[in-house]
Parts: sequence; C-alpha cells; structure tokens
Amino acid sequence: MKAWKTIKSEIAFKCKYLKIVEEDFFGPSGKKHKYFILNRKDYVIVLAKEGDYLYLIEQYRYTTQSKMIQVVAGAIEKGETSLRTAKRELREEAGIKAKKFTNLGWFYAYYGCSNQKAYVYLAEDLEFGKQEPDEIEKDGDIKVRKLKISKIKEMIKNRKIKDCDTLSAFSLFMLKCDNK
Amino acid sequence: MKAWKTIKSEIAFKCKYLKIVEEDFFGPSGKKHKYFILNRKDYVIVLAKEGDYLYLIEQYRYTTQSKMIQVVAGAIEKGETSLRTAKRELREEAGIKAKKFTNLGWFYAYYGCSNQKAYVYLAEDLEFGKQEPDEIEKDGDIKVRKLKISKIKEMIKNRKIKDCDTLSAFSLFMLKCDNK
Repeated sequence: MKAWKTIKSEIAFKCKYLKIVEEDFFGPSGKKHKYFILNRKDYVIVLAKEGDYLYLIEQYRYTTQSKMIQVVAGAIEKGETSLRTAKRELREEAGIKAKKFTNLGWFYAYYGCSNQKAYVYLAEDLEFGKQEPDEIEKDGDIKVRKLKISKIKEMIKNRKIKDCDTLSAFSLFMLKCDNK
Repeated sequence: MKAWKTIKSEIAFKCKYLKIVEEDFFGPSGKKHKYFILNRKDYVIVLAKEGDYLYLIEQYRYTTQSKMIQVVAGAIEKGETSLRTAKRELREEAGIKAKKFTNLGWFYAYYGCSNQKAYVYLAEDLEFGKQEPDEIEKDGDIKVRKLKISKIKEMIKNRKIKDCDTLSAFSLFMLKCDNK
C-alpha cells in the first residue's frame, strides 16, 4: 500500500483549551482528503478501589447540563507524567492518596477527529483527606461517591452512568481486574 | 442550588464537520466561567453479533496514523433516526443487513467539551452482502473482521483494540448481553 501524505497542516482555530488543525492529505489511491483535527491535551482516568468498592465523583456538568457520576479524570499538564497527573487528580478531585497505582492501559479518547489519549490507572491502598477542587468543580458541587462495583454495573446498565470515560475505563477494569 | 446561567453563546469556529461555540456563563456561586463547546453530529455504534462472534471493521485511520480494529460507527445525518443510521452504517461499512436491532443505550461521547451522544445498537439475524465504503474508507482499506467475543476481550486487554467507541460499547455489551 502506498503511503498517506500530508500536504497542508494549518491551525484553523486556537484557544486556551483546544486547537483545530486543518489538514489536507493524499490517501494511497492518490485521492485528496481534508480533515479538521482536534488537538487537546492527553488525560488520565483514575479508578480508586477499596475492596468491592470504587470511588467515583458526582458533579454538575455544564456541557451536558446535568449532574453526572463518573470517574476521576483530568488533563496531563506540561512536564507531568501520566502517573503524576493520576496522583494529582485523585487528590484534587477526590481527596484521596494511594500507595499503589497500576496502569491498566490507554485508549484513543476521540479518534474520529483527534489522536488524544486517555491513560487509565487503578489506585489502591487508599488514604483519605480533603478535596482540592478548582473553581468550576466547586461550582459543580463536586462530591465523592463510594459505590459498590456491582452497583456501578447496574448504573451503567440503567444509564445512571453514561459517559465515554467511565464506560471505556470500565471495560478495561472488568477485563483486567474484576471477575465477578 | 442557584441555577447556571449562560450569558454569551457565539460561534468561534465553524466548518463542515464541527463547530466550536464560545460560551460564558455564571455558576451557582455567581462566578463567571468560559467554555469552548464542541458541536458535532450525534452518531451510532453497531455491534453485529452471530453466535459467539461479533463483526468489527479494520481500517487505517488518518487521525491516529495507524490501522485500527473497531466497531461499525457513523454520524446520524439530518432527518435520520438513530436506528436508520445504524442500518445504513452496518450496510455501508460492513455489507451486513440485520433483521433484529436492539438499542443497548447511549453515552456522552466527549462530555468534557461536548454534549454529543453515541447510540449503541446490537444487530442480530444477519445477512451478508457487499460493503459500500465512502472515499476515505476505501483509502483506509476498510475490511470486515469476524472475531470471537473472547478474542475481542483479549484484544482489548492487550491493546490491539484501543478506541473509546469500542471500549464504551463493549462495557454495555458485556453488562447487557454477555455473561461468559
């Protein structure tokens, strides 16, 4: 198969949170295509586990105009490793420190128009402290929810939990950590 | 809790495939926030099942610069119901018609900056015909892959399958359809 070849790559839009890059390219057939690529920071997802329970968070989400129960998650900031971000986000969003972190893998978070990656960590041996939410999380009334794993499964089935991050991470969790 | 209030909503960028809307809003605390909301069409995911097998597709993805094995998926076009899109995409991408479609639920596909939804269907009682790929799918050398469900689980575990759609849909599938 002949290679793909990018012939144009220009920033079409840029703000603090994301970038749209307009790319023209040839496919192997020689046909020309155009994509608008979304560029956002990679992020981490953390599943904090204690026995048969996981710690999720509940907060109001402006984008979906609703309260959502979901995994701890946050962007990898410049200079951070994914593990360091996992530790920071777990402390900030849930007030939890963990002695043990296990990398469960990563996935493409929005592959249709982005190569953004989400790294999934399991956190164990937990210690509990105070949350350090940012301004939008404070306004979203962020709360920690300790939920039985079997309960989370029910909540996914009956759509009480319905976001891509929790669902994707839960696939990895069920296949790698959970045989119940 | 006081309500959230949008005070500005302006298109910051628009192209054929997506729109970025700049929104300023007050949270319940009275504090002002800003979001850049990504606006894209809702879409469907189809899991075509035959006994212990699912039909996935393999194609080169320009966004991730790699071949990916993943679920059949595609945008809901204007005037279409999600079910109609499911039937169309299954036929176009996999060359499959199905007599039975079951709605397994929906999820927010990119809730961090979008309210885009993905509807998940299980397709059964399959008939096989010819694919009708579009230009970019032809260039991506789209192929149908008949895979044992146990094999797909292995592929998720060892990162041969690593996209948000297949992982999210597989959570729903494992919880609702599969007890092996």
